[in-house]
Amino acid sequence: MKLLVYRLKKALGDYRVGAFVEERVIDLNEAYRQLLLHQGEIDLVRNINSLLPTNISDYYSLGEVAFERSKEAIDFTMRNGLTKGVYDKEEVELAPPIPKGSKIICVGKNYKDHVMEMKSDIPDFPVLFNKFSNAIIGAEDSIQKSVYTEKLDYEGELTIVIGKEASHVRKEEALHYILGYTIGNDISARDLQKRTPQWLQGKSLDHSSPIGPWVVTGDEIQNPANLSIKTFVNGELRQNSNTEHLIFNIPFLIEFVSRLITLEPGDVILTGTPDGVGFGMEPPQYLQAGDTVKVEIEKIGTLENKVVDEKKSIR
Amino acid sequence: MKLLVYRLKKALGDYRVGAFVEERVIDLNEAYRQLLLHQGEIDLVRNINSLLPTNISDYYSLGEVAFERSKEAIDFTMRNGLTKGVYDKEEVELAPPIPKGSKIICVGKNYKDHVMEMKSDIPDFPVLFNKFSNAIIGAEDSIQKSVYTEKLDYEGELTIVIGKEASHVRKEEALHYILGYTIGNDISARDLQKRTPQWLQGKSLDHSSPIGPWVVTGDEIQNPANLSIKTFVNGELRQNSNTEHLIFNIPFLIEFVSRLITLEPGDVILTGTPDGVGFGMEPPQYLQAGDTVKVEIEKIGTLENKVVDEKKSIR
Repeated sequence: MKLLVYRLKKALGDYRVGAFVEERVIDLNEAYRQLLLHQGEIDLVRNINSLLPTNISDYYSLGEVAFERSKEAIDFTMRNGLTKGVYDKEEVELAPPIPKGSKIICVGKNYKDHVMEMKSDIPDFPVLFNKFSNAIIGAEDSIQKSVYTEKLDYEGELTIVIGKEASHVRKEEALHYILGYTIGNDISARDLQKRTPQWLQGKSLDHSSPIGPWVVTGDEIQNPANLSIKTFVNGELRQNSNTEHLIFNIPFLIEFVSRLITLEPGDVILTGTPDGVGFGMEPPQYLQAGDTVKVEIEKIGTLENKVVDEKKSIR
Repeated sequence: MKLLVYRLKKALGDYRVGAFVEERVIDLNEAYRQLLLHQGEIDLVRNINSLLPTNISDYYSLGEVAFERSKEAIDFTMRNGLTKGVYDKEEVELAPPIPKGSKIICVGKNYKDHVMEMKSDIPDFPVLFNKFSNAIIGAEDSIQKSVYTEKLDYEGELTIVIGKEASHVRKEEALHYILGYTIGNDISARDLQKRTPQWLQGKSLDHSSPIGPWVVTGDEIQNPANLSIKTFVNGELRQNSNTEHLIFNIPFLIEFVSRLITLEPGDVILTGTPDGVGFGMEPPQYLQAGDTVKVEIEKIGTLENKVVDEKKSIR
């Protein structure tokens, strides 16, 4: 199942949870409501918003049962060719498929070839840093190039979404704590990232870092350690690797992080980027307004965003 | 006004916004409700939760008007010697006075004497890093010592709470964006902090970092650049400085951060710690279960927490 967060372009109401099915967006709450009505479950219909929340945070917190209901609802919709709450992709706009307050944990230096191109050393432990919610944009938003950077760079990354509270999880159990997988572009202002010893200020610029377009649930990706990952800038292939090359693999990362930091449903881990970033090219090539960056990960899809200049100026 | 978040020990319901007045806790929503009832404003009473939210996130988002109503409510309560919604300090437990999803931005290397004791260099720009919400505890909670650290250290810090959305704010205007001031203890596991180039994993351990006990609103601290700051471990004075020694002062920090990261009501900035941390002692002295750490900042109060060992083990 491909879970997404959308709203209708013409209504611009609240964002709601949907699924992407055969090139269309199905509103899951509405689809489940129709199934319950069909089954004559009038009492359940009254509680529809707790049974299948429209809000992504509540939806993720509900866990497995939300997926089961969603799948039933999608089946019912498709089998009966229903059209209510079913939209063409052009009718909706997508938001990042994660809750606003969730932890956004990034892993640095996690592909050997990328460590080399950054002229750095293979770390003994996973290197963790973060982005704040101000940085996160959806699949159809534009990457904003801050007026304070001249060295804006891309980093395509396989991104994990956590499905249940995870504290001191062993790596053998780790995959059970994953809700699904999405694509992240860990946009990095190299000049700001490197002007102090801590990277945060170059990693969390307003409206810079796309996540999406949807979360592919874990049941569809049995082995996240063998997915091709590619990044294109204006159609030119820049990154071309496979998640099998991760230095610290996904089960290890979840064990490592959850020993220190309790993870909650909707928290995300960007697992690191392979070689081929703009900083590593000779000469370096940074993103400019008008450029398009596309990250493509096998079994998930593509995440393509345009770069635009920041419009704000000092107040 | 000293704003806090509390719940009654005997009821353990939702946390609510209160004020600390003459050694007692006044529930602000209840106090305002009584004022409106007294004034015969029955229609307004029906909307009491939007007029003066019980939830800290909504309360902060309301801005100045929330303070005005709170002050009226406190005056009314005190003048009339009301007792409903007024509690002894022993009857309540305090939570951190910030919303759960807020950004927790920390500034490193911001006092010269601390930079020296860390054998580091004065930075050219503020060094920014973060903590996640999993780390934050209130004034009466215990600092949890993770099983993965042997070098747990304290850092007493003047902590700013943001009052309104701040993007590209000039330093001349910066103080207007501050809701108030509180005390933070930027607990740091030196071994975990320093085993990779990024500090996050040593800075955001579960249940490690106290913030509180309350937020003193900006009107009571006209000049945050002249406050004495002290830290005691088991009664022994370890840090003893003044916020006048900040390398990057508060208006500069707000200008600096808000150019890159839009700040929202309830976001916090821990402004850095002076010299005297355990890491800098010879030999270094780290926190152990049973220790008590007290941070005292002039015009704000004291933040005192016990250290306990983490109880969890690997699942």
